[in-house]
Formats: sequence, C-alpha cells, structure tokens
Amino acid sequence: MKYEDWVRQELRELSKFLGFQYTPNEEIKNRLTRIRTRMKKQEIEALLVVQKMNFYYLSGTTQDGFVFIPLEGQPLLMIKRELERAKVESPIKEIVALRLIREIPSLIQSHCGKVPHSVGLELDVLPVRDYFKFQEFFPSVKLMDASSILRETRKIKSFFEIDLMRRAGDIGKKAYHEAKKILKEGMTEIEFGGLLEAAAKRYGHEGLLRVRSLNYEAYTWHILSGLTGGIVSQSDSPMGGLGLSPAFPVGASLKKMKAHEPILVDFGTCYHGYQADETRMFSIGRMKQKFIDAYKACKEIHDTVMGEARPGADCEAIFMKTLKLAGKLGYKDNYLGTPGLQTRFVGHGIGLELNELPFIAQGQPHPLEEGMTFAVEPKIVFPGEGSVGLENTAAITEKGYEILTPVSQEIFQV
Amino acid sequence: MKYEDWVRQELRELSKFLGFQYTPNEEIKNRLTRIRTRMKKQEIEALLVVQKMNFYYLSGTTQDGFVFIPLEGQPLLMIKRELERAKVESPIKEIVALRLIREIPSLIQSHCGKVPHSVGLELDVLPVRDYFKFQEFFPSVKLMDASSILRETRKIKSFFEIDLMRRAGDIGKKAYHEAKKILKEGMTEIEFGGLLEAAAKRYGHEGLLRVRSLNYEAYTWHILSGLTGGIVSQSDSPMGGLGLSPAFPVGASLKKMKAHEPILVDFGTCYHGYQADETRMFSIGRMKQKFIDAYKACKEIHDTVMGEARPGADCEAIFMKTLKLAGKLGYKDNYLGTPGLQTRFVGHGIGLELNELPFIAQGQPHPLEEGMTFAVEPKIVFPGEGSVGLENTAAITEKGYEILTPVSQEIFQV
Repeated sequence: MKYEDWVRQELRELSKFLGFQYTPNEEIKNRLTRIRTRMKKQEIEALLVVQKMNFYYLSGTTQDGFVFIPLEGQPLLMIKRELERAKVESPIKEIVALRLIREIPSLIQSHCGKVPHSVGLELDVLPVRDYFKFQEFFPSVKLMDASSILRETRKIKSFFEIDLMRRAGDIGKKAYHEAKKILKEGMTEIEFGGLLEAAAKRYGHEGLLRVRSLNYEAYTWHILSGLTGGIVSQSDSPMGGLGLSPAFPVGASLKKMKAHEPILVDFGTCYHGYQADETRMFSIGRMKQKFIDAYKACKEIHDTVMGEARPGADCEAIFMKTLKLAGKLGYKDNYLGTPGLQTRFVGHGIGLELNELPFIAQGQPHPLEEGMTFAVEPKIVFPGEGSVGLENTAAITEKGYEILTPVSQEIFQV
Repeated sequence: MKYEDWVRQELRELSKFLGFQYTPNEEIKNRLTRIRTRMKKQEIEALLVVQKMNFYYLSGTTQDGFVFIPLEGQPLLMIKRELERAKVESPIKEIVALRLIREIPSLIQSHCGKVPHSVGLELDVLPVRDYFKFQEFFPSVKLMDASSILRETRKIKSFFEIDLMRRAGDIGKKAYHEAKKILKEGMTEIEFGGLLEAAAKRYGHEGLLRVRSLNYEAYTWHILSGLTGGIVSQSDSPMGGLGLSPAFPVGASLKKMKAHEPILVDFGTCYHGYQADETRMFSIGRMKQKFIDAYKACKEIHDTVMGEARPGADCEAIFMKTLKLAGKLGYKDNYLGTPGLQTRFVGHGIGLELNELPFIAQGQPHPLEEGMTFAVEPKIVFPGEGSVGLENTAAITEKGYEILTPVSQEIFQV
C-alpha cells in the first residue's frame, strides 16, 4: 500500500483507537470569529501564523507549516512535509503543500486572489532572520505585530479546552497517587522525579511542558527537598532547586531525600497540548512543625485567592491581598522567595503554554473573566532550609471557579 | 544566614559533592580566542549573546542574562536574577546585576569606556520584538547577524566538551542495559519510554534534549514499534511515530508493543548540556527476517560512514556513497523514509544542540575536521509495517574517529 493511502485509510482509526481527540470544526470557527474581531480593531488584513502552539490553536494540527487567516473567507493551511496527516487532524478545508517558504506569497495569491496590504506576524517569538525573509517575500506588505491578538484570544478557554485541561488534571491525580508508593528515604530527587514522570506518561501525559519564551525551559521534574528548596531560580519563580549541572541548574538534583525534610513536588501534566500545573508537599516521616505551619499558611493564601476568584475580580487586588495576608501570618520575608528575589505573582495563566494571561500579580490591574484558566501557587521559602507550597489549576466559571487539579491537598506523608 | 552568604559558602561545595563540573577558565579563554578570530574577519566589534546554549558556551553558566564579548578586553556577564550563583558557576571575572534590559548600553559603556560601533546578535533565534528593543537602546550601533560565527565556532569541540559527551554516552549505555529488563510484551511504547528515561535520569541524564529552532522540539521517548515506525515525522527526520495527540504527534504512543515487531529505540541523553544520540533495535521474541536483514543493511551503511570518517573527508560524498549502497542493498525506496518524503542526511552534528554542524548530507560539500562530533543514523522504513535503524555519536580524532556511545550494537531481543 502507498504511504498516503495508508494514512488516509488507517491512521485516523488507529489514532482514535488510541484516544486521539481532534479539534472540532465548530471550535476552530469560534476561535476564528474571536480572532477576526481583534484583527478588525487593529486593522490587520490577515495573519500568518507559524509558532507551534498558535498554529495548533488555529488549525488543530502541529504538522510543520503555516496557517494563513484572512479577515474574510477560508483559512489556508500550508504544510511542509506530511500533508495527509494534516488532513486527518485539521478541520480546515484548504490544505496545500509548501515546498519552499518563498512560495507562501503565491500560495496566498491563488487562495485569496490577492496578497493583503497588511499581515500580522508573531513578533514575540518569530526569529529576526525569518522576519527579514518575509520582508523580502512580501515587499509591498505592511508587516505588523499580531502577538497580542493571539495571546488575548487564547486567554479565554472554551469548554472543549477546559475539558482537555481537566483530563490533564486527572492524569496528575493518578500520578500523585502513585508518588506515595514511589517515594523512599535515600532516593535522589531526580530518581523520584523520573519515576513520577514515567507514571504520568503511562496515563497519557505528553511529557513536554511548554512555555512561550526564547530561553525559559519548562520541565516536570521540579522536586526540591530540604535545602535545595531554598535555592533561587534562574527564571522568575519563587525557587529553582539545584538541578543537575550548570547547564540545567533547576529542578530535581542528585541530592538524596532525607526523613523529615519538606519535599516540594511541583509537577505539571499535559494532555493534547493542554496543561495542568500543581504542587503538593511530601515528607518521609513527619515534616518539622515549622514547615507544616508554613504549608498551612500557603493553604490559607490559596483559599483566599480562590475565595475571590470570579468574573470581574481584579488580578492585582487579589495579589496585594495575598501579600498582606502573608505578612500578617509572619511570612513577609519568605513569601514567594528569599528577600530581594521575591517574585511578584501568585498566579499565572495556563493552557497550551505555562505563561499565558492572566497574571495574578503586581502591576496587573485586569479583571478575571469567565473561561480564564490559571494556576495559583503560594510558596514560602526558607533559605538554606527548604520550601513549601500548594498549587492548583482552576477555571473561572460564570459565577466562581472550578478546580481542575483534583488531587487531595493533604501533606503526603510516607 | 543571608541567602547570598549561603550561596557563596555552601552552594559550591554541595554542587561539587553532587558531581557538578564547572567550565574551566582556560576553556572559556580558548573559545573566546576562536570566536574573536571570526569576529575580526566579519568586522564585528562585539557580540551580545542571550540564547541559552550560546550563553552557556561562552560563560559556563545558564543563569538568566546576557554576555557581552568585546573584540579586546574582558567579557561582561550581566545577570538578571541570581548573581551569586552565576559567580560560582562562571569563570568570567566581570559579573554585574542587570535589572532592566534598557540598562545594557550603560553597563557596556562603564565596562568598556565606550559603546562599540557594531554589535553581533543571534538573529537565527532572537525574537523580532527583542531586536526592535535593541535598535531603540543602541540607536547609533550597527546590529549584525552573528549566528554563523557562533555556530561555526561551536562545531569544533574541545577535549573538555568531548569528555562530557562521552559521559552522556555512558549514561546511555547504562540505560540501554536496563531497557532489556524493562521491556515486556503488551507494555505501551510510552510506558517503556518513560521508564527508560527514568533509568537514565537516575544515572544523571538531564532530561531535556535541545534543538536550535523556533518549532522543533527534542524529546527522548522516540520509541516506535511495528507500524508506528512507518509514520512520517512532522520534522525533517526519517520517521516520526504516532505520538500521543495531534499536539504532540511524534515519538512513543499508547500503542501496545507486540512480539516479533521491530521496536526502534532512538534515545538521546544529556550530561552538563552535552548530548549523545543513539538508536538500537529491540524485539520481544525474534524479529521477522525482513527487519533483521534491513538492520544488517543499516549496520553496513553505518560502518561505511565510519570507514570514511577522518579529517578531510567530504560530508556530501559520504552521504552519496550511503545512498548508492542503500540502493545496491535493495533499499532505494526505504532508505531514510518513505518515497517522496525521504530525508537527505545520514548524520547531524551534535553537542549542546541536536542540529549542529556538520551535516552528512546532500548539498553539504564540507570537509570533516578534528573535534567535530556528529550522530550517524541510517534508517530503513517500511510504511505500514515498521522501521529499523542504528545510530551512534562519534567524534573526529586526529586520524579517524571515536565512538562516544559504547552500547552493544546487537539487536536487543527479550
């Protein structure tokens, strides 16, 4: 059988049998409607989208290529290699082969009958060299920055998207449940992290976490025990851990986990690209009282955030409230990091990427809206001693919120 | 104790105890000398490097920031968050705090006494938005593309770098050894992949693999069994597998592995940022003769490449020789992919990233040089049935080559 025929006839069935969910046509249509409202407002005639997660959001596939979205009419999907699989995965009708990048303008021309006057690109991530190429290939077109259009559209999730995040949360629940059986005294952080990840993968976790950035790298094995929990992160997060080398100086290390230490397990899971992020505390034997008390404070801060979580609530006001509460509880110098390096957010939007809108943070006076999804992660850091924290992923509903990470919030003591 | 004091006094010892190796000053000095020779040739007065792997290569740390390399004088390391850990990790003498990106010109000014006329940036990966910011902050400076300077310098590895790759290869050997004990009939590809990864992490594998690209994502769980081995990749590689969803449609899937199928395990490992890439074949019971024969052909092609591997050998000529040999052996339509989608390389440079120079490929008439490191991966694909392949990572020595992935090349039958 020819490969193309095999894909057309058998790949869809095999994929469905193994649990693949394809983005429905209605879903893509709704996304396009919302994108186009923003395009009109910014007077952008078309988008040319390449970055994998934006591309997936608008096409339902991640087969390598570009998706062209005109203000009116059908989108055009241009695929570099595997056209037939893209046809199985994407509900977009117009799917064509793209051999060379320089053919994009003529493919657009034949699709629309003209090349638009202005095209929006993802200037937040597009490499400069690619931009120069587009300038060359579209000499008379105004190239504009469409990053915020995509970011703002993606910040409100549909039921379809929230359901995939719920599934990611369920995988997390199963993995945490197994973690209690895996954790042993004397095991290294990285061994624990690796086995936890293997458990999650068995349940369908996709392995990769994604973050929108040139340099930040997301990873699941953020296991910090005792003093490694007090080490500052290279990125803007409360603590980073030791990691395995100067080339990857965050997350789990080869340090052995000891009895009575606080063991912080910040473990994200991913299902069909959609992520759920959560943190739970573990200990071998009872954790020192100091850490138990601090964990209770994290829980109180977490519950305070959730108590405010509903459409219309102001993100910055919520953050400032947690800051005040942390101070009142006696953790002014430990809340969200060590003095001088404390972060200024307690929640971050999450979906296809870990740094989506909204941010529950200082300098973010924006209202929560129905359909937003975010992780709330109050953490308390004692330099040289350890860290504690609690994290859940939630969705804003019509009147309140729904937790998407249903694992128990007890301290997991083994 | 203040956090800064703890880092200064205790982090270095803890890290050393747990096996951290820091890049020696001599190593950085040699890299700078080689970079500067190229900068002179291209008339670039200074480099401003931000991308994590280039940054690590030139500084020895990956704490978030920028490294500024003037043509003469000391480099300047500007760190956004964790200054004290950067001081522990980097042999660079001048390390300063960077609060805001717009402060870079004044920090450079105070370091050098002037701002250079031309600055090289990594335009192959730098996002357009960041480039526009640099244009604004350096209004009178000529911004140039320094991507190829960095790429060309990094393609020749030092003894220090090759030794780290050898260590990555040793981790791979241990992991493959355990794989024989892990693999069971009826286990899913992803479960096998997850457990293999967990084993490697226990030995110090860093988990992440890195590839220089906006959209390509490297991962270790490339486990393809039977028909999933015949599925084309979204990226330019011989086969991709099914993956877990349209959002991650490559690598291991939830398909259960059956007896007598060819099970291709393409598993990379990473130690201190340096990678070793290798592929071995597994089967549960004896693999069908057709696949055993094809594997023997891969081995013959692999050995032919290695037989040519020495300084001065032409990369394109080697590739064309393998193409001819594959045809002679009866695999014209199966070598490196399915007809119409066959890749045109049998080897890729490897080090801190998986797509470094050189490429043993069509259109690459460049000589091999001492210190180059690359993975050789002849693969043979039968659409709808399965794939076989063999891959090793090697370094070019003064007169020949050294294999850095010492695991046995037998078919691992369980």
